[in-house]
Amino acid sequence: MGTITWEQSRANVNLSSRTTFWKSLKYQLKEAFFPDDPFRHMSDHPPLRRTWSFLSYFFPILEWAPKYKPTLFASDLLAGITIASLAIPQGISYAKLANVPPIIGLYSSFVPPLVYAVFGSSNNLAVGTVAAASLLLASSIRGKVSPEVEPELYLHTVFTAAFFTGLLQLIFGIFRLGILVDFLSRSTITGFMGGTATIIILQQFKGLLGLQHFTNKTDIVTVVHAVLANRREWKWQSAVLSLGFLVILLLARRLKEKVPRLFWVNAISPLLVVVMGGIIAFAVDGKDHGIPIVGDLKKGLNPISISQLQLKSPYISVALKAGLISGFIALAEGIAVGRSLALLKNEQTDGNKEMIAFGIMNIAGSFTSCYLTTGPFSKSAVNYHAGCKTPMSNIVMAVCIMLVLLCLTPLFKYTPLVALAAIIVVAMLGLIELHEMKHLFKVDKFDFCVCMAAFLGVVFVDMEVGLLLSVGLSIIRALLHVARPATCKLGKVTGTELYRDLEHYPDSTTIPSVLILQLGSPIYFANANYLRERITRWVEAEGNISKEKGQDLQYIVFDMGGVAAIDNTGIGMLFEVHRMLRKKEIQVALTNPRLRVVEKLVAANFIDVLGKEWVFLSISDAVSGFRFALHQADNHDEVLQV
Amino acid sequence: MGTITWEQSRANVNLSSRTTFWKSLKYQLKEAFFPDDPFRHMSDHPPLRRTWSFLSYFFPILEWAPKYKPTLFASDLLAGITIASLAIPQGISYAKLANVPPIIGLYSSFVPPLVYAVFGSSNNLAVGTVAAASLLLASSIRGKVSPEVEPELYLHTVFTAAFFTGLLQLIFGIFRLGILVDFLSRSTITGFMGGTATIIILQQFKGLLGLQHFTNKTDIVTVVHAVLANRREWKWQSAVLSLGFLVILLLARRLKEKVPRLFWVNAISPLLVVVMGGIIAFAVDGKDHGIPIVGDLKKGLNPISISQLQLKSPYISVALKAGLISGFIALAEGIAVGRSLALLKNEQTDGNKEMIAFGIMNIAGSFTSCYLTTGPFSKSAVNYHAGCKTPMSNIVMAVCIMLVLLCLTPLFKYTPLVALAAIIVVAMLGLIELHEMKHLFKVDKFDFCVCMAAFLGVVFVDMEVGLLLSVGLSIIRALLHVARPATCKLGKVTGTELYRDLEHYPDSTTIPSVLILQLGSPIYFANANYLRERITRWVEAEGNISKEKGQDLQYIVFDMGGVAAIDNTGIGMLFEVHRMLRKKEIQVALTNPRLRVVEKLVAANFIDVLGKEWVFLSISDAVSGFRFALHQADNHDEVLQV
Repeated sequence: MGTITWEQSRANVNLSSRTTFWKSLKYQLKEAFFPDDPFRHMSDHPPLRRTWSFLSYFFPILEWAPKYKPTLFASDLLAGITIASLAIPQGISYAKLANVPPIIGLYSSFVPPLVYAVFGSSNNLAVGTVAAASLLLASSIRGKVSPEVEPELYLHTVFTAAFFTGLLQLIFGIFRLGILVDFLSRSTITGFMGGTATIIILQQFKGLLGLQHFTNKTDIVTVVHAVLANRREWKWQSAVLSLGFLVILLLARRLKEKVPRLFWVNAISPLLVVVMGGIIAFAVDGKDHGIPIVGDLKKGLNPISISQLQLKSPYISVALKAGLISGFIALAEGIAVGRSLALLKNEQTDGNKEMIAFGIMNIAGSFTSCYLTTGPFSKSAVNYHAGCKTPMSNIVMAVCIMLVLLCLTPLFKYTPLVALAAIIVVAMLGLIELHEMKHLFKVDKFDFCVCMAAFLGVVFVDMEVGLLLSVGLSIIRALLHVARPATCKLGKVTGTELYRDLEHYPDSTTIPSVLILQLGSPIYFANANYLRERITRWVEAEGNISKEKGQDLQYIVFDMGGVAAIDNTGIGMLFEVHRMLRKKEIQVALTNPRLRVVEKLVAANFIDVLGKEWVFLSISDAVSGFRFALHQADNHDEVLQV
Repeated sequence: MGTITWEQSRANVNLSSRTTFWKSLKYQLKEAFFPDDPFRHMSDHPPLRRTWSFLSYFFPILEWAPKYKPTLFASDLLAGITIASLAIPQGISYAKLANVPPIIGLYSSFVPPLVYAVFGSSNNLAVGTVAAASLLLASSIRGKVSPEVEPELYLHTVFTAAFFTGLLQLIFGIFRLGILVDFLSRSTITGFMGGTATIIILQQFKGLLGLQHFTNKTDIVTVVHAVLANRREWKWQSAVLSLGFLVILLLARRLKEKVPRLFWVNAISPLLVVVMGGIIAFAVDGKDHGIPIVGDLKKGLNPISISQLQLKSPYISVALKAGLISGFIALAEGIAVGRSLALLKNEQTDGNKEMIAFGIMNIAGSFTSCYLTTGPFSKSAVNYHAGCKTPMSNIVMAVCIMLVLLCLTPLFKYTPLVALAAIIVVAMLGLIELHEMKHLFKVDKFDFCVCMAAFLGVVFVDMEVGLLLSVGLSIIRALLHVARPATCKLGKVTGTELYRDLEHYPDSTTIPSVLILQLGSPIYFANANYLRERITRWVEAEGNISKEKGQDLQYIVFDMGGVAAIDNTGIGMLFEVHRMLRKKEIQVALTNPRLRVVEKLVAANFIDVLGKEWVFLSISDAVSGFRFALHQADNHDEVLQV
């Protein structure tokens, strides 16, 4: 008989592979913590070259500095000056958000960029303070230490928080915990950024309207109430100036959108607004006429603050908590920004390496009167558009800020708060991505819910609640995927030997007495019970269909091609399902089990119990195998027509 | 050209399917909470019949009672009497473990089985108290209320805990949260049970040696120290009796293993030991001769305890916590036992329905002086082997216990504690599954770690730590699976049109300039970054291989057959990878995307960006498609030989 030949000639599933525990552990650890395999280029280098490669892995400056050329410097110089012009107003503005003296914002644009230039691996990132983390820091710490009552202690706690942020980031980087940042999904970040931008804009009504009294809360209800309750304090001078500045900044932004070549107008518009505001405030003696100003700024470079770190209870715990949360957020932003800009240039960034750079930068910052810095989106995008080539643009920016600190700071005394508020409002408007939210709603409703959980949580409660809610939802979804893997019934696509989902290809044909199920991935404790229930339901439903046609269900094929892994509970489930089906006289077959799964099924004796002649490489082999067996059994009967 | 025909005739991926959000939400909720689809049989019934089906869903007794026959009763009677003979010594023993008066153990074998007979859906489960949960209850509560100093208050707190256990189980059942119990893996349960059995055995040294002083801690170090430190109190009379009883019980168990027909000898051996012990203790006036006895037991049925529930602070929080933890454990045991016994008879159990039954049973129990009950393994197995047919055997047991409570309780006064200790030790020995642990070590080292985390955590720290440690490890593993899905490079298995993992089938052949990758499942936020890195590495490695052969990598095929779901972050990753590969002039193709994935890729415009001619139903189609395109492009050149 020809069928004998078929049986002998068919391609078989490789059941003999064995991986030792240590090899597979090593593989798993490597994939978990070194997915980018950073040293993969080094193995074929000579020793000296390898040492250099190794050093340049930890000090990326060694990679680009030796090859640095004057032409590159021309680009970096322009980019550096552009981002410096943005760093001054943003530094002062965000320092106000964090409730620290404005000068701290300038300090934070001097030391950290220098450190980043040595350790950072992104050519596009511009280092600076960031709005969301500044506000988060302030709202975490002010519950314990009041910036109004104890401004010194508050400032020292902020430095300490920056220190812990750095420590956290460094540890994350060293232990290659980039995997944790992966759990912040794009939807979470969109919602969180949008929500944070909204509450930051609301906070600016204090500045825009020149209010004296305001609230420390960040939720929308309290803030709107505070704005309305203090109607008496609204100052028309501030309001008029606000409007003017907002119009200038929005026009500049519009110009950039229309004529991308003129992006620099938009980039220097904040500085322009600060200068104009300063002149106006100086001219009309604004402080006495409803236009509050920043006030005195001390000349000179960053003072050392290492002795001011608060490493004693109870402030250490406040700083630790604030540092961890804001550091995590800052990290996510910095890595996402670096990654998306690198992508535009078709470069690579290494998230874990970036974490180490951020960590060292924040620790160094906390020793030199800086607070939390990262790679903010707005500044980095400007850096990118201004044509930066290497981290040298950060050095240029730092030098510019140094010159300002040494000579020009007194000039910024007259900066009106209303100008800072307008700058923040316009920067924040760019972070509310309504377009992306609409896209989410269209593509994936659950992602939209995750996004809205973050957005509404931040807006109506506070930033931590919003973040936790959103991440919690995401993780529940991840676990649900694991706990309820998709299974489907397959049919043969007409004119092919392919078996595909019947729901997806409704014209596919099924074979009487045969049920083919595709199992999802992976099979283990969290879904074993579910899969047993689901398979039982499939078998019962198929049995009824077969009965209506006067036949019995005789054969069930599990397509295991999509099952990436299986654990002990999962194997136990297969044994139970096999036992149940044998009692109903239904033959079970497996097709295309993957490497790791085969190894475990063999070790657990499942293949022996099933019979290795019932393990096939493809579904059409499995169907042929069934026909062959039927044919053998009914040797004297008519050959079954299927 | 024939290729045109191929292009037209190939089976295409169905890109036109759309599922509305509500339909897919409904489907997902149904799969998450009603995986067993309990009402699936009802839709085709007439209304009256449907109402009856509906009622019998909530009161399973309506299903079996009307069909009940005398022949069934004969079986159930025998099984009921057998489990009653086990219930008496176990009830008294486990009550001692929970530090409540022994009579409470008997009460707990009277009311709960009656309630279960009405609401329970398992024909095999025998209701009773259970060792692990008893000990857990005691160790949770005794930290706040001492059973020695305030025995009344302690007892009332135990009742209250049972009430909260019931409430928790009822809520779990009503909201179909069986999914939570799924997160207790078989490995966790093996380790936890083994660890608990070990510490319970250690606890019995107090009874076995007749000690007066002992420790309240459960960890092995403290307990062994307590046994050795109290050497002076060791009583030879107790030790001798212990040895004798242990030998009898172990022989009975051995007999059952050798001659399964004589299982009943093993089942009644505990009662035998209690009776023998009682006679000996009575004869030698044991209490005064180194053989402590149970002491007075009050005649009569369960007193009402509803007014004794402690619903006021601070006891309510103690009871709540103890009730939740021990209830969760009891639930897991009860459901697992019901499920595995049903499987032997090829019956179904409904975990959510069982939870409701357990919940009502424990609430009713807490009102009638019972403490936590569930379906313990030992008793249920005896019930099964004794040939039970329906929950009627629980009613028989309850009636037997009722008769004992009404007439015979005073006789149990002389039960020596040493007999109870011996009974517990032998019961617990059966729960330490060394064989299963060895099996785990062989099949899956990670499962073995999960199991050992539970075992060692319970033995060296306490039960809660062991459980949390083990569940935590399992969940981290589940998330790691999700965060680091397996990808592999495929090759063509010789002599077939099948493409399989090259690592698994090393003889498979690759095609120059073409890289075929199988992606794992699902693709979303937690693994999108990883997949991008991994794909980049594959592309780079393949590019190097191609270069060595003097060719460029031109074509990459992503086999999406195993990708069950994708989210917004995952789609974003595909866009980025596509952009990166286009810059390198590598054409991307997808094969066999599944229904839910196709829908989202279409909605997000990815298919449009990719070009729908690059979506194929099978890998061999994708390879043909590439050859066709090459052929078109090099029309004037030689036809490429691949």
